[in-house]
Amino acid sequence: MVKPELNIDTSAMESFFNPRSIAIIGASEEPSKPSARVLNALLQRGYGGKIFGVNPRYQEVRGVPCYPSLAAIPGDVEMVIISIPAGAVLGMMEECVAKGVKNAVVFTSGFGEVGPEGKAIQDKMADLAKKGNMRILGPNCIGIINIKHSVMASFANIVDLEPVYPISMGFVTQSGAFGAMIYMQASQEGIGFSCFISVGNEADTDFCDFLAYLLDDPETKVIGGYLEGAKDGKKFRTVAEEALRIGKPILMLKVGRSTAGSRAASSHTGALAGDDQIYDAFFRQMGIIRIETLSELTSFVEVHRGGHMPEGNNIAILSASGGAGVWIADKCEALGLNVPEITGETRRKLEEYLPFFGSAKNPIDTTAAVGQNPAMLGKCIRALLADDNIHMLTINIGFADHNAEVYADDLIDIFQATTKPILLVTLVVAPTEIVSRSLARIKESGVTILKDPLFAVQAMSNLSRYADKVKKAADPKNIITTVDPEPEASALLKTPDALSEYHGKKVLGAYGIPITREGLVQSADEAVTLARELGYPVVMKIQSLQIQHKTESGGIKLNLSSEREVRIAYENILANVKHYMPSAAIQGVLVQEMLTDGVEVIIGVTEDPVFGHAVMFGLGGIFVEALKDVSFRLAPLTRKDAEEMVKEIKGYRVLLGMRGKAPVDVDALVDVILRVSQLVTDHGDRIKELDINPLVVFPKGAKVVDALIVKK
Amino acid sequence: MVKPELNIDTSAMESFFNPRSIAIIGASEEPSKPSARVLNALLQRGYGGKIFGVNPRYQEVRGVPCYPSLAAIPGDVEMVIISIPAGAVLGMMEECVAKGVKNAVVFTSGFGEVGPEGKAIQDKMADLAKKGNMRILGPNCIGIINIKHSVMASFANIVDLEPVYPISMGFVTQSGAFGAMIYMQASQEGIGFSCFISVGNEADTDFCDFLAYLLDDPETKVIGGYLEGAKDGKKFRTVAEEALRIGKPILMLKVGRSTAGSRAASSHTGALAGDDQIYDAFFRQMGIIRIETLSELTSFVEVHRGGHMPEGNNIAILSASGGAGVWIADKCEALGLNVPEITGETRRKLEEYLPFFGSAKNPIDTTAAVGQNPAMLGKCIRALLADDNIHMLTINIGFADHNAEVYADDLIDIFQATTKPILLVTLVVAPTEIVSRSLARIKESGVTILKDPLFAVQAMSNLSRYADKVKKAADPKNIITTVDPEPEASALLKTPDALSEYHGKKVLGAYGIPITREGLVQSADEAVTLARELGYPVVMKIQSLQIQHKTESGGIKLNLSSEREVRIAYENILANVKHYMPSAAIQGVLVQEMLTDGVEVIIGVTEDPVFGHAVMFGLGGIFVEALKDVSFRLAPLTRKDAEEMVKEIKGYRVLLGMRGKAPVDVDALVDVILRVSQLVTDHGDRIKELDINPLVVFPKGAKVVDALIVKK
Repeated sequence: MVKPELNIDTSAMESFFNPRSIAIIGASEEPSKPSARVLNALLQRGYGGKIFGVNPRYQEVRGVPCYPSLAAIPGDVEMVIISIPAGAVLGMMEECVAKGVKNAVVFTSGFGEVGPEGKAIQDKMADLAKKGNMRILGPNCIGIINIKHSVMASFANIVDLEPVYPISMGFVTQSGAFGAMIYMQASQEGIGFSCFISVGNEADTDFCDFLAYLLDDPETKVIGGYLEGAKDGKKFRTVAEEALRIGKPILMLKVGRSTAGSRAASSHTGALAGDDQIYDAFFRQMGIIRIETLSELTSFVEVHRGGHMPEGNNIAILSASGGAGVWIADKCEALGLNVPEITGETRRKLEEYLPFFGSAKNPIDTTAAVGQNPAMLGKCIRALLADDNIHMLTINIGFADHNAEVYADDLIDIFQATTKPILLVTLVVAPTEIVSRSLARIKESGVTILKDPLFAVQAMSNLSRYADKVKKAADPKNIITTVDPEPEASALLKTPDALSEYHGKKVLGAYGIPITREGLVQSADEAVTLARELGYPVVMKIQSLQIQHKTESGGIKLNLSSEREVRIAYENILANVKHYMPSAAIQGVLVQEMLTDGVEVIIGVTEDPVFGHAVMFGLGGIFVEALKDVSFRLAPLTRKDAEEMVKEIKGYRVLLGMRGKAPVDVDALVDVILRVSQLVTDHGDRIKELDINPLVVFPKGAKVVDALIVKK
Repeated sequence: MVKPELNIDTSAMESFFNPRSIAIIGASEEPSKPSARVLNALLQRGYGGKIFGVNPRYQEVRGVPCYPSLAAIPGDVEMVIISIPAGAVLGMMEECVAKGVKNAVVFTSGFGEVGPEGKAIQDKMADLAKKGNMRILGPNCIGIINIKHSVMASFANIVDLEPVYPISMGFVTQSGAFGAMIYMQASQEGIGFSCFISVGNEADTDFCDFLAYLLDDPETKVIGGYLEGAKDGKKFRTVAEEALRIGKPILMLKVGRSTAGSRAASSHTGALAGDDQIYDAFFRQMGIIRIETLSELTSFVEVHRGGHMPEGNNIAILSASGGAGVWIADKCEALGLNVPEITGETRRKLEEYLPFFGSAKNPIDTTAAVGQNPAMLGKCIRALLADDNIHMLTINIGFADHNAEVYADDLIDIFQATTKPILLVTLVVAPTEIVSRSLARIKESGVTILKDPLFAVQAMSNLSRYADKVKKAADPKNIITTVDPEPEASALLKTPDALSEYHGKKVLGAYGIPITREGLVQSADEAVTLARELGYPVVMKIQSLQIQHKTESGGIKLNLSSEREVRIAYENILANVKHYMPSAAIQGVLVQEMLTDGVEVIIGVTEDPVFGHAVMFGLGGIFVEALKDVSFRLAPLTRKDAEEMVKEIKGYRVLLGMRGKAPVDVDALVDVILRVSQLVTDHGDRIKELDINPLVVFPKGAKVVDALIVKK
């Protein structure tokens, strides 16, 4: 079906996932060849559609009929798999279009990844496909797998693996070899894949097209991906927003973070590598879970499987080892989960159930006594889950024959009666039959079982953050602001001229962003009149498009407190500037009120080649310069986005009041960020960069002191 | 033997690890009882010494002779294992001393961990042991294991595990249950333990005593530990320094980092939980590797096993998957390893060996072509290892029947000819006999084989940092500074009076720390004379021990540029202070030169209850307050310690020159830190706290502007 909200026609990709017939172009009997491996995989897994070979050298290969050409195949061919020399691919594409093939998987390499000549042929393939209503996967890919329909259209060794059930993860990868490695390791850890797609050079279909397809695939519960660089940031955003709306999590392993990584990423694929910080902001903003390790991916699939989502960030830790409990608590706090002290009625109940040398505080230490008295576990868990202040639970406990069944019965019963996630961390040396059976029953009921406490905590933390994002996305109050700007903004932006500080601030003012009271004057007399009107002290600044560095030019005077000082400043500024740059065209001198208090922050806008305009926030001065302590979000922003980016910087506490100062007006700051977002969304075609440096934020309100808008 | 440099008599602990006879006090036939489990373990593993039971109810237990009392056992008993009710333990201790027992392992709980009464009995046990020349392990411990001599003196289920060989890790734990969990998981991952010691309540012997013992144990190549809190920081330091000297790595899992963790840690054991930041500093300073996960521990043991230590921080990454290479590069840089671009002759050689669509930059992408042409691997590795700029190597590659033996022969040959560590990351789906045998040969040769690239990189990073520490520790130039202070310092510190800013700075000055030129005056005339001598502008400050907040009191005047301003300032300061606090005793007014440039930093000293005096360093002002961006080291510091702590803060680059400023004199800063370290080392008995705030550091030199020394 065409998905209008996504503007991606996923129906045209359907035949990749469930073709009624497949022709293997370049079919071969040589077992190590990709075309032989893929045929073997299709036969071995019992693909149900028709299979044809195309190769003039054979009449049949492994019992499959083989034809001298595609045209010679009787009837329709829905999908082809192309594994022939690069020089022959373009001609074959024409035959495919002539035959009415819907989808082509191209294994062959030697196109865009090897140089401009290959890229030119690849572009022709894409054109041909568009005109012929055919969609291509690849070239230079290892293929596609759809377990449900036994479409094993890949030559990678992963087709030899026995599929793991239940299937749940759809995976899209920009690296065939690394994708296969992830498939292999995740399968070994018990994760079942619904689909696996290696996108190769993305000549026609791209990474995001397949994400969009997987959103609709009912077998895919979680989407994973390996990404080096997205081609179309807007499309990616649309897909990610839809994923959040329907509540299907996306997890991304995105590389190219380090300098060495970027060096290789740009040589490895033709994909445009965006700035990693922008990717990071994009993932945060869209609720895409950025994973760092494969175990983080598989653990998340495990905790998500149970279907229970945490309503908040508070975790209870119940452990039969005090030390392990403390360790898990450390990890929880390091990963952003909150481990609240258990109080009140819940505490009272726990103290009743626990031995006197245990601890009911959280982490809850049952001590080894729980092993001898297994009913204690269920009692404690029921008390904890009844507490509204607890949103999820981690249990660290050993299983033995004499307690496994009691534990299992209680856990299964409890999990069915709660909506809170429960995670069991257990390490079993030599599982007996009773222990194995009990653990299998627990797992089947939906309780997550993991071996490593670190990955367990990480998965819970990811699940909690994801649940929060889904909730925020569904919140009708969390909308993108729409400001009704004064027409002056458009007028100023549409002129061909560059904008001075004065006019840049007029544009901001037209969007309702508070700016310093000020005026542009042409004489000392005018300056004095205006200064009196504004009230002393005032600041005076040269206005000239040629002068980038006002301070260096001697074009700024601060803290002017009298008519006499204003007159002297006016003359000095003009004289200094004339000396500094005799050729500069002077628009006048800006006289503005002087702000003496508040916290200075910076709000900026930059244009990313992949994702478009990104809004930046940071504290003023050395925080940004020495620590690069800034946060980004992509325009347009919702209110929650702006709130998150303000809280995200390390220096956030400066805004809450340091050294006895009152906290500043974060709402006013968020409002300015949202109006800037709206401005660049409305006029993105004209604005290249924007810098508000500084915005001064007061205990009540905020004001722009200096601003620069660079037009395209 | 008594180790004089450690001042720990490890010979008195010898019988814990290799007793000629063991008596089990409370021997029982009930198989689930600890005393039965430990007997079973000793018998099953073939402990070679004599075993006796003590229990009036039996004459023998499982073929072991059982006596009504310890005294009734004929001949000597070297070690006892006590597993009887808490109330009977103290009496039994007396019998042990009477019998001349050398070591007692006490499983019984119900002492220090349950309250003051239990603690009192525990203290009596310790006294008794000291007087009777007996050493106790525990109480409330799960025992001790020494694989070499089959001393399985534990009741934990880990005694049932088949020991893993070769044995290499000695492990000491403050939590029995968590320690056992670590033992279990590490054993499953193929790590062989030499010894395992659960220290319990540490009534007599403590955590550090066993670390000291393991330093001497030839079977123990790496020491691991689970720590909640050390009892004696000085002893810990001595042990750690010795470990570094002999090059035996210590890895610590230290919990209690989070608020929830600390909450539980203090209730879990009687150990004194020190501030986590101080522990972190201690570990860094002593080259103790602080681990966060069990996999980090086991991976380190693996990379250490080969015996090759990196000479520097540069890693080459060779991968058959470009994507995986990029990912590993990202991880390397995130974990502090450097991934230099390959250049020159090495690059030329690699380009000769690699296919044209590969990459020789680093990460080196062999592409899947290496699988078909396995000789390429050895050629590339030899080229990389011949490059002096490469200190270690990680290889990410798949093994198959047709290439496994070529890879193995090359890797084994190469590893024998190099001193650089080599790490092989490989994921094998279904290992064939050829692949398994090849991997086994590679592992045996010393090359590390790991499955997970993350842990591989982490282990390399830890190994590299450890190697650097060992090198620094052996560097004869990296000594602890010894300043020859002027006698004034002692004199001022020995007076019973508190120290004013003026006198505090005199103490610093006596240690050769540069301070502002200044003097204390008693009249406006004296102030003027002194100001003229110092040169304008000057600063004037009230000196009074009662006035903590000089600014608030109106007792500071800055930037005084003339005789007139100095006179007015003098009168104003006295008037302001009189109004602010009429009762304050005024020592005079301090007139000091005004410093106008440079970067303000803070150097402080605090006394930690476990580790003694810790020196703190941070940038001045908001960096410390808003970001808590500070580093600590424990006195006395070496020059490398001071250099490391300066570089460790996030804002370090401020010192390198921001906004066009020149870099400041880091050597002068390091020198001040070292002199402060010397001062608190010499006079630790008198100094409680010290604050230099700020020290102004210039492009050349540094000066203390204000300082506070708080006496004990």
